[in-house]
Formats: sequence, structure tokens, C-alpha cells
Amino acid sequence: MTSSAASAVLDTARRAREAAAVLAPLTRRVKDDALLALADALVARSAEIVAANVEDVERARANGTGEAMIDRLTLTDERIAAIASDVRDVVGLPDPVGEVLRGSTLPNGLELRQVRVPLGVVGIIYEARPNVTVDGAALCLKSGNAVLLRGSSSAYRSNTAIVAVMRDAVVAAGLPADTIQLVPGETHDSVKELMTARGLVDVLIPRGGASLIRTVVEGSTVPVIETGVGNCHVYVDASTDLERAVNILVNSKAHRVSVCNSAETLLVHRDVADAFVPLALAALKDAGVTVHGDAAVQAYSADVVPATDADWDTEYLSYDIAAAVVPSLHDAVAHIRRHSSGHTEAIVTTSQAAAREFVALVDSTAVMVNASTRFTDGGQFGFGAEIGISTQKLHARGPMGLPELTSTKYVVVGDGHVRS
Amino acid sequence: MTSSAASAVLDTARRAREAAAVLAPLTRRVKDDALLALADALVARSAEIVAANVEDVERARANGTGEAMIDRLTLTDERIAAIASDVRDVVGLPDPVGEVLRGSTLPNGLELRQVRVPLGVVGIIYEARPNVTVDGAALCLKSGNAVLLRGSSSAYRSNTAIVAVMRDAVVAAGLPADTIQLVPGETHDSVKELMTARGLVDVLIPRGGASLIRTVVEGSTVPVIETGVGNCHVYVDASTDLERAVNILVNSKAHRVSVCNSAETLLVHRDVADAFVPLALAALKDAGVTVHGDAAVQAYSADVVPATDADWDTEYLSYDIAAAVVPSLHDAVAHIRRHSSGHTEAIVTTSQAAAREFVALVDSTAVMVNASTRFTDGGQFGFGAEIGISTQKLHARGPMGLPELTSTKYVVVGDGHVRS
Repeated sequence: MTSSAASAVLDTARRAREAAAVLAPLTRRVKDDALLALADALVARSAEIVAANVEDVERARANGTGEAMIDRLTLTDERIAAIASDVRDVVGLPDPVGEVLRGSTLPNGLELRQVRVPLGVVGIIYEARPNVTVDGAALCLKSGNAVLLRGSSSAYRSNTAIVAVMRDAVVAAGLPADTIQLVPGETHDSVKELMTARGLVDVLIPRGGASLIRTVVEGSTVPVIETGVGNCHVYVDASTDLERAVNILVNSKAHRVSVCNSAETLLVHRDVADAFVPLALAALKDAGVTVHGDAAVQAYSADVVPATDADWDTEYLSYDIAAAVVPSLHDAVAHIRRHSSGHTEAIVTTSQAAAREFVALVDSTAVMVNASTRFTDGGQFGFGAEIGISTQKLHARGPMGLPELTSTKYVVVGDGHVRS
Repeated sequence: MTSSAASAVLDTARRAREAAAVLAPLTRRVKDDALLALADALVARSAEIVAANVEDVERARANGTGEAMIDRLTLTDERIAAIASDVRDVVGLPDPVGEVLRGSTLPNGLELRQVRVPLGVVGIIYEARPNVTVDGAALCLKSGNAVLLRGSSSAYRSNTAIVAVMRDAVVAAGLPADTIQLVPGETHDSVKELMTARGLVDVLIPRGGASLIRTVVEGSTVPVIETGVGNCHVYVDASTDLERAVNILVNSKAHRVSVCNSAETLLVHRDVADAFVPLALAALKDAGVTVHGDAAVQAYSADVVPATDADWDTEYLSYDIAAAVVPSLHDAVAHIRRHSSGHTEAIVTTSQAAAREFVALVDSTAVMVNASTRFTDGGQFGFGAEIGISTQKLHARGPMGLPELTSTKYVVVGDGHVRS
């Protein structure tokens, strides 16, 4: 990239740091007022956002983009009103900043408390959908963080218009314009620059497909929260209610196939295979799902496609599922440990012992007992908002709401205390 | 590095993953019994550890290592007994694993709980002191993690002997030998291999000097917890008790100069400079401290060495301190934001408003009000043990005890729940 483009990205990050210093001590009321102003401005100026969006959509059409992607890209007055309504919902959520997580008076009389503080500068790198531009900005503002938004080039005009509206709104509310910034540049180079802005950017959150996430995770010197790749499993135990198992399986797989919490592999205990697999295959067929089975599953139906080694590691995000028969719960756990992305795994069982063992042994973000994998979701968990689903173990694991956009600091109050 | 050496490091990590799966569901009693066995074994076999240590010490002497470093490297029966006693203290700490951090029953009846789980495989990269070999292993075992220990080559024989004793002890207690492993190889290549073992190692914790920490932070694809670089500040406010301020300053600087929570810069409000700076200079001189001052501080004494730009960013770890006069609390905060490593900053003030403002505006791991910077410490905070002091914002910030060696998972229990 040209050095001027590089310095433009770093300048953006430096301005974000300045804004973050202003945002950190703000009270909830000030932040909520700015969010309400932002929501109002999006609605009031939706015509100019839609006009910019039309340009993106036309360009996408000219580039031969598929209709599903076009639909995700498209903004209308109604959709903008819905996005603004989501911002108003964020106003209703508690402010995580200032929460005292723990505290004590030490034996020497020092008063110790651990207090939530904003992370500082949050970079969000995302694809396609322009609603993330608003969601990300709103959640970061509520949690006292400055945000650097790096959307896809396909939505660049839409994002530029949205960010201009949001910046005007926060300025009108008395906050720095650089509370919210779009990272300049439409090429991949600006992403690289953001990934190595260590010391200026506190955390990067990539949201999108597996390839985007891998690129960011492997190339960043800035700390990254890995999100959203889901190779989720449904394990049907030896002791199980067959109808319930079929319902959970079909819901986990086919309720919405394009999302990270949909199931991609079915594992069936061999003691229940004769009873369950034929029911499962029929129900999956009705739902339009192609089954990629091991030899044992193939034996039940000619419709089953032979699974290859790659199937066990595949996040299909389509009407496909891998399926295998396993000799025990422990073999199911071993399979999951080897192949899962660590997102969500479900057991369907009537056995309390099996449920307890599965929960103890499965090392994933969420473990479901007799419930669909589709429940791993900030909204479903009652968090009120979600910036993504972390599948890593550091900092945040699972659906990330406002508290996950904070760090902490220790405040220690003494009376002339020195160490002896 | 040779490919066989590389695969040796990765094999170590793979074996650690297997061990981690066994450790995760263990009860506190099993882990505590193993720790007690480990402590007993260290004492029982201290002769063979000391014999190995003698070789390291002789080699260090032959290489011209200074006496301070030789002292840190040296193990005796008494020192090993003290290290074993620290392990017994860890037995007394609560097990963080299994703690329910939050939970609720969702409107649809799903029971949601967030439970602490081990991180998995923790790699510790450290310098010189062989006591870290035991501390790191004990804290990781207590928190259910498998540990990969990568000490310095100068302590390789000592660490090899200690790890052999610890592995025998955990095996005798019924745990996998690979609960505790020394990373093979004495060269820097094995560190590099560890840093890129993403997917096998869950977190790396570097403990040591700034250069080691920078190398690990910048070169790792494995998530890293940055520890311990401390450019700490003492700010003496306009309203202040002079004697208290002198005591806190001298304690922060000179109580122990080689540690990360010692003060490296003094900032004085100009309204109190005439009264305070002469007292401070006299007390620092008595404590053997050289002051590197700005023009205003130089005006008070010919002993003051003129500060260069580099002084404000220097972690001396010696009997030196930088000193400047600032026109306001806001200028002190701005100086700290620009130059601090984000470890610990102290304000000395009698003004409640100034204390409140300093705490709100300073973005560091710990903020002290009328107390020495030396209090930022797991032991002082009452955490009972410390694996290091994190100066980053993700995951853990400040002294890291057992809870900071854990992640969480969500357990969701239903009754056939599917999403509609």
C-alpha cells in the first residue's frame, strides 16, 4: 500500500485513542442521549443512506453478485427504521462501565476494588451487511469505546453515508466525532494496517466467514477475539426420547442453515442407531437436508452420501449434515474434541449421568442438554445485544454483550500506605 | 531449527492437550492431593535438584554471569523447602473450576449457567529463576490446566531435574505425567515453535524482561497475556500532605527497585513544587536515588541530572527516577497516558475531587490513591498466588491469580427445547 494510505489508517487509530480518553469517564446518561440522537438521525436522514446504498447495490449487481448477497446488502427506509430501533434497545441496557466486580478491605486497611472500564479502541472488521456498521458503533459507544469500522468494500458507499450520519449525531450530542470512524480505503491493505496497529487499537473483532477470521487471527499483532466459526454437533445418546431427538436434530440443522450455531454433524450412539437413524434420515429428508454418513449410517438408506474425512471438519452452512454412529458417549466426546470448532454441542438424553458426563467432558463454548444448538445467541441468552460469538478461551467465550466489550482496573485507596 | 526439534515441541504440546482433557473434570480433592505429593517430592528429592543446579551455577560462573543473577539461579535445600511450602499454600486456595459466574432461567424455561473451566494448555516462557518452574506448574495444576514450561537455558539442568520430580509425583498421585512438561531444546527456536502452536496451546504467558515480552507478544499466533513491564508514576497533587507524599514516593521508588511495580517517574503539581521538590530531592538522595529532572526540577538542585526525552519512557529498574513539574492534574494525566506502560500510577492528594478525577482519567491496570505503587501484587491484593501481572486489557488485567487461569463455558439445560 502507499505510505499515505498506511498513515491514514494509523491517523484514524490515533484519533480514536484521543476520543476513547474522552469517552471512558462519561456517565450513562450522556452516552444514552448520544445513542438516542444517533437513532433519530438515522431515521431522519435515511433517504441519503438509501441513495448511497443504491450505488453499492448497482455495483454489486454489475459484478454479478448473487441475489442472497444483494438482499443482505440492501437498505430500505423500513430496514433503517428497524436498525434505529435496535439502537434504542441498546439505550435500555445497563451500562457495564463502573460496575464493581469485586472488592475488599485488605488487612492493612487499603480499600481494593476491581471496576469495569472500557477496552479503549475497538476495531471491527466485517463483511457485507451494513447493519453491523450501526450495531457495532452503538454497542461500542454504550460501553465507552471508540470504534474503528472496517466493512466490506461492497458496502463502502452505504457505510460511508451511515458513518457520516452517526458522526454528526454524536457531535450534536457533545461527543467527539472520532467516537465513530470508518477505516479509510477499500482495499485489503487497510485491514492489514489495522491488524498491526498494536498500542493504538486494543482489540480487533472480525465478523464474517472462516477465511476472514483466519486471516485476522493469524496476521494480527493487535489482540483478536475469534468469532463465530461453528462446526456444531448433536449427539443422540443411548438413552433418549426418539421424537425429542428428531425435533432437536432438525431444528439444530435446518432452522436456519447459514448461521454459526446450526448443527453440522450428527453422532448417534450405536445402541439407539437402529431405532433412531431411520427416523432421523426421514425427517432430515423432509427438511431438504443431504446426509453425508459413515458406513454405519449409509447402511440405513441409499440416499446417504458417503462421508469423506473432510466432512467431519466442514462447516457446511447449507442443507447438508455429516452423520456417524459411535460406540459410546466417550467416543462421541473424542470425535467432538478432534473435529469441533468449539462453538456449541448438544446431547439428547434421558440419562442424568450421561448429561452430566457430556457437560463435564465437552470443551466447547456452549453445551446444550436436550436443547437445540440454535440457542447459542446473545438475544436468546437474554444479553440484549451481541457483538459476535467468541469461540476462543481468552477474555470472552460465547455470545459477547456489553460486559465483554470492557476490561477492568484496580482502584486502591489508602491513607499514606507504604510497603514495609 | 531442525524439523525433528520442531516436531518435538509440537509433540509436547499435543501430549499436553491429551493431559488437559483428563485434568479438566478433576475434583479439587484429586488436584490438591497431587499438589501435596508434589511438594513432598520436591523436599524428599532436593539433593538431586541441588546437584543439577550446581551444574547450572558453575556454567553460569564460567560464562561470567554477575553475582545478582547467580543468586537468583541458585537453589539450596532451604530454598527448595520454601518453594514446596508455597505449593502447600496453593492447596489452601479455592478451586476456581466449576464456579458458576452467572445463571438464569430464560423465559422459555431453559436453564442457563456460565461456569468456570480450565483454559486447557498454558505455556509459560520465563527467565532465570527456577522457582517459577514450580509456581507455574502448581498454579496450572490447581486450575486444571496442563502446563508447558520453557525456562531459560541458564537453568535448563535445574528445570529438568525439578520437572522430573514433579512428573513422578503427579503420576504417583494418579494424574498423567504430561500434566507438567518442560519444553525440549535449549535454543530460542523452541520458543518460536511454541509461539506458533495455535490450536495446541491456549495461551502463552511470558514472564521476564521487556525484550522477552515484546518478542513473544509480537511473534505469537497463540494468544498471549502481556505481563509485567512497569513504567509507574507517582503524581503529587497541589493539595497534598508533604510528609505523606515523600514517604509514598520513596517507598514506590526505592523499596525494591528491580520490580515492575516500582515507580520510575515523579510528577509534581507546580503549585506545590517549591514546598515539595526540595524535600523529595533530599529524601531520594538519602535513599541513593539519582533524579533525572526536567528544567523546573533541575532548578532545585545541582544533583539533578537533566532528563532526556527517553527518560520519560524508561523502566529503569534501578536507583533512578525521572521527575517533572506539571501545570495541572490534567497535564499529569496526559503525561501518564503518553508515557506509561499502563501498570500502576499513584496520586498523593488531600483533595477528594482530585482523587476522583485521577482515578476516572488514568487508564492503567491499577490506580493508587495515597498508597505506594508497590502494592500492585497478587499477594498484597490477597489473591494468595500470582502467575504474573497482566498489563493488557483482554482477559486479565493486573495481578493474575487462579481465576485468571480459567475460561468459562455456557451450560444450557432444556427439556426438548427448539427455536421457533
